[in-house]
Amino acid sequence: MYNIAIVGVTGAVGVKMLEVLNTRNFPIKELRIFASEKSKGKKISFRNEEYVVDIIQEDSFNNTHFVFCSADSSISKKIGPLVRKANSILIDDGNAFRMEENVPLVVPEVNEEDVDWHQGIVSIPNCTTTPLVMILHALNKYAQIQRVNVSTYQAVSGAGAQAVQELLEQTEQLVQHKQITPSIFSEQIIMNVIPQVDDFESNGYTKEEMKIVNETRKILHLDNLSVSATCTRVPTMVGHCESVLVDFDQEVDIEEVIKIISKQEGVVCRDFDNINNYPTPLNSTLDENVYIGRIRKDLSNKNSILFWLVSDNLLKGAATNAVQIAESIIKRNKLDY
Amino acid sequence: MYNIAIVGVTGAVGVKMLEVLNTRNFPIKELRIFASEKSKGKKISFRNEEYVVDIIQEDSFNNTHFVFCSADSSISKKIGPLVRKANSILIDDGNAFRMEENVPLVVPEVNEEDVDWHQGIVSIPNCTTTPLVMILHALNKYAQIQRVNVSTYQAVSGAGAQAVQELLEQTEQLVQHKQITPSIFSEQIIMNVIPQVDDFESNGYTKEEMKIVNETRKILHLDNLSVSATCTRVPTMVGHCESVLVDFDQEVDIEEVIKIISKQEGVVCRDFDNINNYPTPLNSTLDENVYIGRIRKDLSNKNSILFWLVSDNLLKGAATNAVQIAESIIKRNKLDY
Repeated sequence: MYNIAIVGVTGAVGVKMLEVLNTRNFPIKELRIFASEKSKGKKISFRNEEYVVDIIQEDSFNNTHFVFCSADSSISKKIGPLVRKANSILIDDGNAFRMEENVPLVVPEVNEEDVDWHQGIVSIPNCTTTPLVMILHALNKYAQIQRVNVSTYQAVSGAGAQAVQELLEQTEQLVQHKQITPSIFSEQIIMNVIPQVDDFESNGYTKEEMKIVNETRKILHLDNLSVSATCTRVPTMVGHCESVLVDFDQEVDIEEVIKIISKQEGVVCRDFDNINNYPTPLNSTLDENVYIGRIRKDLSNKNSILFWLVSDNLLKGAATNAVQIAESIIKRNKLDY
Repeated sequence: MYNIAIVGVTGAVGVKMLEVLNTRNFPIKELRIFASEKSKGKKISFRNEEYVVDIIQEDSFNNTHFVFCSADSSISKKIGPLVRKANSILIDDGNAFRMEENVPLVVPEVNEEDVDWHQGIVSIPNCTTTPLVMILHALNKYAQIQRVNVSTYQAVSGAGAQAVQELLEQTEQLVQHKQITPSIFSEQIIMNVIPQVDDFESNGYTKEEMKIVNETRKILHLDNLSVSATCTRVPTMVGHCESVLVDFDQEVDIEEVIKIISKQEGVVCRDFDNINNYPTPLNSTLDENVYIGRIRKDLSNKNSILFWLVSDNLLKGAATNAVQIAESIIKRNKLDY
């Protein structure tokens, strides 16, 4: 049984953390929940007990085994040293430590063994990277991947609970013919598509796009893999979609490709029997799987395939992966407190 | 001055036909408007006169110069012979004749000269093909294109007026917590993304995706150009977006690429000075231009670029292109009645 802390418990991912810990029967002895000043004192029930949201202090993580953090990078950076000092393990959902050399970036179905070299912090990848690397990991067993190009269709919940609220409010305002003023997003998001997720870097790519490039390489241990991405925000609540092109070093047999993908743990192929049976944000979320469909040979290159994937950005893209990492650490270290 | 007929005048594109004929000051002597039985007798005003919707009969197109049709393929096929018999010219928005050898498929900014060999029918391309070929036409002047991959984000108006109604109704039903039952689309479209536009073919691609492949080749006169596409429907009203990858036969200079594109007639580059100034369905529709942004070198291949485009599927994607074709025929034949 473990003592755990959740930082950012009132956020879009934080709420899912409690849900996932419960559905996965994570063995919890003591639970501490934290959020920002404005949520202090809020009561949250979990497994029939009531917990009170607190704010982080120097000793908040003493005697914990795992700290799950889903908050701004600035918060992660602040609590990193506190967690290390407390000899606990930080499993961080944000961008703060992902590319640091001594921080494993882990999707357990892909590189579980990387948890072994953690030094108090394990990062989970960005919610667009996680489902993609699960498919690429499977494909790379079949033939060497030469190049990956991704176009995303990302749900507003990836931008947090306030973004979800913004889409809901704008939907009502639209129906009531009221003025719509964007706040979280750069433009109105209802009835729109915004080709920007996160800030721009100087190379013309957004940070979100560069996360896909860099994190994919790190997780797959393929430092020179050619990856590029275009990330967009669409008016959906939950479930990130990705339209993906993969070039291999040789011509591929699509039936073999489908077989390989369908053997990948955590991935469900949706279009085996019925070509219309493709994943969508509404039919392929609220569970922990990555859904793939429309797997086909690329008409523009005999060495290439195209496919479409959907995964729940708050579950496998965040909370589920975080809890799985804790489970992996427990399993591989044969920890038992 | 010309006698023209509009078939499908009450549809999503038909309404725009009247708007475009007006804004482009098309010289009309006589206007006849047609639709299906259920719209017969409906009155529509145009240039301060009232017109009555009629149904098509054998002699409907006698003494017309141009017939603009935006209706089901079955209607186009029915009226094709009538228009030819009347010695008029059918400018058809649908899929009925596009790939026929004796039917030019024309985007005037790209292949205006193809109108010269019409035999009574000129087709306009699918609304996703038109903006794409305008960019590819410009790019091909700079360096030889080897391969094109497109992922689309298509508005519901591409599926017609009933689809627009369906999205509006579903939006209200969502706000009012009412049951949502899809009709036009295979699933609920509000708060969703559906990776299917038009029916599936046996190769795993949809008809919409194959239109992009085949029409692009025909318009550019590049029969072997490697093109592939993934088409999706998103919950937007108007404005199709495309995330595009283009491979060239050589390394490209991105500044030169931007220069070439910005010289293309009918195309507006949005992100010259400001990286955040990208096109979206809400900021780049309701006019006749194709908007392009986020033009950048592909990180996964030095011979490649990525870009993002938006165009109004009812205007340049349909009505505008149709009227421009008539204008091209008039200009090139020095017609003057």
